[in-house]
Amino acid sequence: MKTDIQIAQDAKMMPILEIGKQLGLEEDDLELYGKYKGKIALDVYDKLKDKPDGKLVLVTAINPTAAGEGKTTTNVGLSMGLNKIGKKTITALREPSLGPSFGVKGGAAGGGYAQVVPMDDINLHFTGDIHAITTANNLLAALLDNHLQQGNQLNVDPRRITWKRCLDMNDRALRNVVVGLGGRANGVPREDGFDISVASEIMAILCLSNDMNDLKNRLSRMIVGFTYENEPVTAEQLEATGALALLLKDAIKPNLVQTLENTPAIIHGGPFANIAHGCNSVMATKIGLKLADYVITEAGFGADLGAEKFFDIKCRFAQLKPDATVIVATARALKNHGGVPKAKLNEENIEALDKGFGNLEKQIENVRKFGVPVVVAINKFPTDTDGEIKLIEQKCKDLGVAVILSDVWAKGGEGAIELAHKVVELCESGEANFKPLYDVSLSIKEKIKMIAKEIYGADGVEFTSTAEKEIQKYEKLNLDKMPICIAKTQYSLSDNPKLLGKPAGFNITIKNIRISAGAGFLLALAGDIMTMPGLPKVPAANNMDILEDGEIVGLF
Amino acid sequence: MKTDIQIAQDAKMMPILEIGKQLGLEEDDLELYGKYKGKIALDVYDKLKDKPDGKLVLVTAINPTAAGEGKTTTNVGLSMGLNKIGKKTITALREPSLGPSFGVKGGAAGGGYAQVVPMDDINLHFTGDIHAITTANNLLAALLDNHLQQGNQLNVDPRRITWKRCLDMNDRALRNVVVGLGGRANGVPREDGFDISVASEIMAILCLSNDMNDLKNRLSRMIVGFTYENEPVTAEQLEATGALALLLKDAIKPNLVQTLENTPAIIHGGPFANIAHGCNSVMATKIGLKLADYVITEAGFGADLGAEKFFDIKCRFAQLKPDATVIVATARALKNHGGVPKAKLNEENIEALDKGFGNLEKQIENVRKFGVPVVVAINKFPTDTDGEIKLIEQKCKDLGVAVILSDVWAKGGEGAIELAHKVVELCESGEANFKPLYDVSLSIKEKIKMIAKEIYGADGVEFTSTAEKEIQKYEKLNLDKMPICIAKTQYSLSDNPKLLGKPAGFNITIKNIRISAGAGFLLALAGDIMTMPGLPKVPAANNMDILEDGEIVGLF
Repeated sequence: MKTDIQIAQDAKMMPILEIGKQLGLEEDDLELYGKYKGKIALDVYDKLKDKPDGKLVLVTAINPTAAGEGKTTTNVGLSMGLNKIGKKTITALREPSLGPSFGVKGGAAGGGYAQVVPMDDINLHFTGDIHAITTANNLLAALLDNHLQQGNQLNVDPRRITWKRCLDMNDRALRNVVVGLGGRANGVPREDGFDISVASEIMAILCLSNDMNDLKNRLSRMIVGFTYENEPVTAEQLEATGALALLLKDAIKPNLVQTLENTPAIIHGGPFANIAHGCNSVMATKIGLKLADYVITEAGFGADLGAEKFFDIKCRFAQLKPDATVIVATARALKNHGGVPKAKLNEENIEALDKGFGNLEKQIENVRKFGVPVVVAINKFPTDTDGEIKLIEQKCKDLGVAVILSDVWAKGGEGAIELAHKVVELCESGEANFKPLYDVSLSIKEKIKMIAKEIYGADGVEFTSTAEKEIQKYEKLNLDKMPICIAKTQYSLSDNPKLLGKPAGFNITIKNIRISAGAGFLLALAGDIMTMPGLPKVPAANNMDILEDGEIVGLF
Repeated sequence: MKTDIQIAQDAKMMPILEIGKQLGLEEDDLELYGKYKGKIALDVYDKLKDKPDGKLVLVTAINPTAAGEGKTTTNVGLSMGLNKIGKKTITALREPSLGPSFGVKGGAAGGGYAQVVPMDDINLHFTGDIHAITTANNLLAALLDNHLQQGNQLNVDPRRITWKRCLDMNDRALRNVVVGLGGRANGVPREDGFDISVASEIMAILCLSNDMNDLKNRLSRMIVGFTYENEPVTAEQLEATGALALLLKDAIKPNLVQTLENTPAIIHGGPFANIAHGCNSVMATKIGLKLADYVITEAGFGADLGAEKFFDIKCRFAQLKPDATVIVATARALKNHGGVPKAKLNEENIEALDKGFGNLEKQIENVRKFGVPVVVAINKFPTDTDGEIKLIEQKCKDLGVAVILSDVWAKGGEGAIELAHKVVELCESGEANFKPLYDVSLSIKEKIKMIAKEIYGADGVEFTSTAEKEIQKYEKLNLDKMPICIAKTQYSLSDNPKLLGKPAGFNITIKNIRISAGAGFLLALAGDIMTMPGLPKVPAANNMDILEDGEIVGLF
């Protein structure tokens, strides 16, 4: 059996100008990065702004498990399936972060016969977007420390600085550092830390901006820390906005690549899905909707985090109206949710499947609360038994939700024909009637409680005294009328990663509240969220190489 | 009068594929980065390797002063002049670092009517080369700290780690940091620091490598620190070589852009000129020599540092045979060397000029010691008087060296026609008989003394006890048979920045010895060398912006 990288390297890619031509893009609309990658000029959207939008489909999933669900793979496969049945379709994905590639083996561009290519470039520097974000993030940090050094006119309290530096690297030694050591000429000593670049607020901003002006406004509002009087200090006060925007002038342009079946893929932006909203860029999605009949996009983790934030944050800000949602599940993952350990997932276990189905059931219910119709895609594995598949089908039928077997890993677009037809049917039914879950004018606590109860199925929410204090602070500063971005474990509907399936009778604890004032949301931290990963005992980097003929080894 | 950025934005650029065609490059030989930037495929060199090389011309200068000499501007102008007189010529320059752009206003792509374009891209992220180097540098650091965390099998002494992290940023607060704080899960605490990325040994390696294999060999030999027994620990021992090379797979390809007159420019690599050798990449120079009749290249700072390292390090490693050298000087800068302060440089001062000429005289003598013929280019300023120009001409005549007025800032290639003819004459004279200054098999001290006496004009060299100890260490480790890279002030022939002109009766003090074992040279530190700049009170970043129509403000 071929590996992902072998399949990708055997792919017959078309010049990206040809892929663009399929979408009606002229040569001048694309800025080439080699022959197979291109950036779409921003004026394309302006030229097409009176054209009606295509249909917007979200691919989300049950809570992720060690078994793997294949959300990106299904996304890519579905878009190829739609193209096969004559619907001009774009898959709109997130850009992978470079850091994790060196830790645990594995790329982030789909798998099997449902991949986007050139996958080596996509998983390495790609078109430099994340490097531009890293640079902008660290310029702001340098300007802030320089401000302290040059007299601190804004009266910034070095102990209240919230802006961290970043690198696109898994590097635990940078989580907690002290900077500015070495005496008077070398800065003001203070505690600091580095996040991985995709956790930078600038990544979230890039992904939520409608255009360059919106980007600049959001950048200007970023809060980097607080004064000795606890007043916020913004990027604008540091006179950083213009330089940051200049650094991002190319990064804001969506990247066009292709699938293994030469259908268009836009890969642009990839914010963290816990401390940020975990979706690709608004600009990519919007340009996609002008260029194609269907845009298939994704959100991070399971529907409780990813879909909720897609709807309540991204769609709200960008005024997008999703037409349908695909929830991806596997029989294996549902058995895992039902209590079967990873080692025993190859054995049939109807009882565990029945129990684990609750997770899928809750995610279906969740998506329906936003007024968006649902289809369940069962990502097929060779070990699935007829009995297992039948049970899932029956239980979905009981919920009145369509369920389709998908086999895109082995068959590419051909494996998603039936799913594609069902997605078209849902989109054309006019059934969708999207609305966000809550009104932003509610109080911070009311908004958090609504998400916890309605989406997670919690009984209630507890707030630590730190969280209470922060809530009061943001209310006093009039910064409370924003959507909420909850950072919690992705493995459970609750805030306890060990509660699989559909837990009940639990409370969510909010430990702290932070703000991403430029991105435009308040962060509610339900747990200790890691924003700088570490490397394992034997990093994947140890086995990577590039051979004399250019062959890449060990990247996937 | 138009500013540099206005002139650049008015330029009628040709598609880079057309520029490539002028050089005989096919479409597949160039990887496009937008319409006006391309990377040259590495197999182009292999295809042309039996073709005879063109002529190699180095542009260097007197010791830099506050008055400015215009070395890069002259380089670009000369290449345009050569093209005007029918010689197929490439200008081969260094890539500018992004960090300094945010500090003090000013780009690094020539000036006036002698610029390379697109200068905004060249001064921003360009084709991502420096970002790739930053990433590789920091991956090695992460692997090293992860090694400490995971049991430290190699017995690395955390107090003896020499490998630093880097960012392409002016950020003094990162010069001295402590990493690994926050307890057991977050790394091993130790002192660390960040350099600006162009000071990374990986930049020097990228610029000295002949091909991908050579690059990998050099990467593998990099020393990251020492064990508790004071034995060196290399990148290879950390199993990092392959991953680092993979990250650099595109960065090693030379970048093709153009001048304002649509003649080809290769801009690739830009190592520090004090703690490294300060020249563009060997691969760029070698490919240029296959593609053109003339390659005009540069080296950092004045000839005492730049030309010496170009000859003794770059040409030695790459077996290049330079055919001629242009030494750039201005009447203003020579007056400055003669003791006139910056504010009074607009006034004629024959006496000071006569005195300051000594600096030019010594640099001419220096270049001749390498067996390379010299022409002096006087970069013309409106304030130059006839008397001043005449004096320079007379004194050059006395030394038997040609001197030509150059006016490329105002006139482009047209202002360098006479200079171009003289360069052709020198190159075709067969006068060149290049040889490095010293044999690498000499002892470390002998090599340093030879450079100090022959090139700087010092009486002798003093070594601190630290330097003595380090010399013994490298001799014991058999790592002493390498070229020497001296890091000293660029403002004086001596190691004291205040001794302008042609100082005499001084000693050089070597404070420490370090090694860049991958790059392949020993570093002799004559002074405290800053490898991470800081931002000024009012950073240039404060005035930068990108307007709605894409116009860039404040970058130059």
